[in-house]
Amino acid sequence: MTEQQVGKAQPRAAKGEGATVGVALLGYGTVGAEVFRLLGENRDAFAARIGGPAEIRGVAVSTLDKERPGVPRELLTTDAKALIARDDIDLVVEVIGGIDYPRELVLEALKSGKSVVTANKALVAAHADELADAAEAAGVDLYFEAAVAAAIPVVGMLRRSLAGDQIQRISGIVNGTTNFILDAMESTGASYDDALAEATRLGYAEADPTADVEGHDAASKAAIMASLGFHTRVKFEDVYCEGISSVTADDIKAANEAGYSIKLLAICERIQDESGVESVTARVHPTLVPQEHPLASVSKSFNAIFVEAEAAGSLMFYGNGAGGNPTASAVLGDVVGASRNIVHGGRAPGENTYANLPIADFGQVQTRYHIDMEVPDRTGVLATISNTFAAQGVSIRTVRQEEFGGTARLIVVTHSAREHVLAAIVEQLGNLEDVINVNSVIRLDH
Amino acid sequence: MTEQQVGKAQPRAAKGEGATVGVALLGYGTVGAEVFRLLGENRDAFAARIGGPAEIRGVAVSTLDKERPGVPRELLTTDAKALIARDDIDLVVEVIGGIDYPRELVLEALKSGKSVVTANKALVAAHADELADAAEAAGVDLYFEAAVAAAIPVVGMLRRSLAGDQIQRISGIVNGTTNFILDAMESTGASYDDALAEATRLGYAEADPTADVEGHDAASKAAIMASLGFHTRVKFEDVYCEGISSVTADDIKAANEAGYSIKLLAICERIQDESGVESVTARVHPTLVPQEHPLASVSKSFNAIFVEAEAAGSLMFYGNGAGGNPTASAVLGDVVGASRNIVHGGRAPGENTYANLPIADFGQVQTRYHIDMEVPDRTGVLATISNTFAAQGVSIRTVRQEEFGGTARLIVVTHSAREHVLAAIVEQLGNLEDVINVNSVIRLDH
Repeated sequence: MTEQQVGKAQPRAAKGEGATVGVALLGYGTVGAEVFRLLGENRDAFAARIGGPAEIRGVAVSTLDKERPGVPRELLTTDAKALIARDDIDLVVEVIGGIDYPRELVLEALKSGKSVVTANKALVAAHADELADAAEAAGVDLYFEAAVAAAIPVVGMLRRSLAGDQIQRISGIVNGTTNFILDAMESTGASYDDALAEATRLGYAEADPTADVEGHDAASKAAIMASLGFHTRVKFEDVYCEGISSVTADDIKAANEAGYSIKLLAICERIQDESGVESVTARVHPTLVPQEHPLASVSKSFNAIFVEAEAAGSLMFYGNGAGGNPTASAVLGDVVGASRNIVHGGRAPGENTYANLPIADFGQVQTRYHIDMEVPDRTGVLATISNTFAAQGVSIRTVRQEEFGGTARLIVVTHSAREHVLAAIVEQLGNLEDVINVNSVIRLDH
Repeated sequence: MTEQQVGKAQPRAAKGEGATVGVALLGYGTVGAEVFRLLGENRDAFAARIGGPAEIRGVAVSTLDKERPGVPRELLTTDAKALIARDDIDLVVEVIGGIDYPRELVLEALKSGKSVVTANKALVAAHADELADAAEAAGVDLYFEAAVAAAIPVVGMLRRSLAGDQIQRISGIVNGTTNFILDAMESTGASYDDALAEATRLGYAEADPTADVEGHDAASKAAIMASLGFHTRVKFEDVYCEGISSVTADDIKAANEAGYSIKLLAICERIQDESGVESVTARVHPTLVPQEHPLASVSKSFNAIFVEAEAAGSLMFYGNGAGGNPTASAVLGDVVGASRNIVHGGRAPGENTYANLPIADFGQVQTRYHIDMEVPDRTGVLATISNTFAAQGVSIRTVRQEEFGGTARLIVVTHSAREHVLAAIVEQLGNLEDVINVNSVIRLDH
């Protein structure tokens, strides 16, 4: 174990039963305000659960000009770094959002021996190595349960509950905005643009929805889940990512007719590549899910995560994966955990990447395709197309053909094959004279 | 915080990074054998996750005469107490089952400063106070994730993930045997006796199925969940308990026709009693669940638990709640947690019962009833029956009446009311001349 000891700090001394934990709150948006309110209102309960009171001793905000009812003026500061550096701060709670500025603050906190709780998935997915190393070197904790699916305890489950098991696969709906949009498209027949406008109007999508609709938010969560589940560093840029902005009302209608719903899934898998090497992969893309599968009935902005582990079998977790209150619940659960360690000593399980498995090339992933084509309505077309699949050793699971005003629409669902093989077939199909247009290619899972 | 310090030991000294954790395994049944196998096969992974190897140094069994392939003869002993007492044992894993003997062993382990992992729900539900006190006094950990729903991380979620929230209600299917029986009755129309016989034949029910079918197993789990969720000691004997042995094929048929499934639910709630006092309640009984509710589609021996918390909202957890492998997964997750604390110092969140809320009288519970009666087929009967409900201030939600060979069958579903009021109404109904027989009374939830 000698190698592992390099750079590790001695365990921090426990403050002792009854000691007050000084908390710095960075950010006072929806989540920050809820954290402030709940920690104050339930002061005694928190003290009993921690073993000593947790007291917010400063709140870092970007401007002092705004009304913040309930927060004593003297707690507010625009100088986050000075707040973090104070001797009476033991724990820093980061709920600002963004990447660069919070990264600076979180690193500063960890380096100065303060434990950190963050809800910031983008930060954790982009800079996990650096943050984990800083926490390790200082002998403090970095908690981030709220970074994945808010109060659904995915992080705790992967870090602790399944710590004695081998996780094979994690898959699910981890972005509420895109699920709201896809659900609205399915239930009303709306176009993507109309459904997005509705989501924005109702507050389910941000003014700039890019991070959600292009799958970046889900990809950050996939990177975090894969890292924890496979004990291997999987970074944001390792995650293959397709968003939902090109999903059309037609795609959804065709999927429904064939007995599927379209969901934006994050899928993390332990796989064997073609040369038999064990590796891991994480991806985010629109996915056809059979309508009888529980994931298909996850509506509105809810999240659901499936975990498959060697001994535990299949587990499912479902709940509200976003919003001020659920996120505050997850942050406060972490505040209790981190504070307990400050009072009683001990460390949370860290970012353990001992397995260090290779990240598989995306082409090595095995999946199934649902391919929707426009073809000429003449004999021989199906034979040509079938041969294209057979030549690559891919078998077809179902074919559906409908007349479509002079031409025909052909929908092929394949059996499982490597991604690079399927992609090559789609390219060949696009070049065939017997194929007028490949309308859409959507992966299938579950 | 001075009162809380009474009887608390100083934090145990950490063994330090790389130190070996000596494990005593008590019991070598299905779960014990899996724990032994997995801990051996994944030795390096466990060492990396813990921070040092976990080594099983002895296995206590009831007889040495049995073949136990894979276990070196010198590890086996029939003297569990001597094994526990050994200086090279840091952690005791109890997977024997039963109450009195494991209680003695677990207490002995805790008192001698060894952390304990147990899968024993009956033991934890019956003797939580004593065990928690012993762990607290010795400054060691008592882990029992496997005691509730195997690898579904209910204990971890209640103890840690939701530690910053206020839990209002926990409800769900926590016994696989009874769910298998009820599911079989529903899908095949079988009688209770036939479905039980099938469950026994397939290994889903034990030779003596009493603990499962009478709800005792679910009641133990309800006591544990309520204690953790409400920070209040709820004992096995505090749980109101009705099993499934009196559920008939007719009940299931009637429920299905009305759009319900019958499930054995464990329900733990924070309630206000009639005098406005906040209190807690835990109960287990057959329950009608609307067929469109996710709980209704939990089939075979699967478990599902709903948690409602103030900030997190509703969360659902689903998976295989029993069996050797899932139970071993939960035990091994606890082994990693307890071992980490032995290596790095620190303590798991204990049995924190600071809230100490009163246990409500069962009569104070608010529920709904589904009452199936045989009545004479004559005018005025419905009026008499309706008056009986109205006189107690209980409103009726639906009434269904069908002719039934000279007499009529009347099914009343009430709105929510206190249990003691509904029970009084049922008694009055039984005494009415206008009621020939009260065929069944089943509660409704969700």
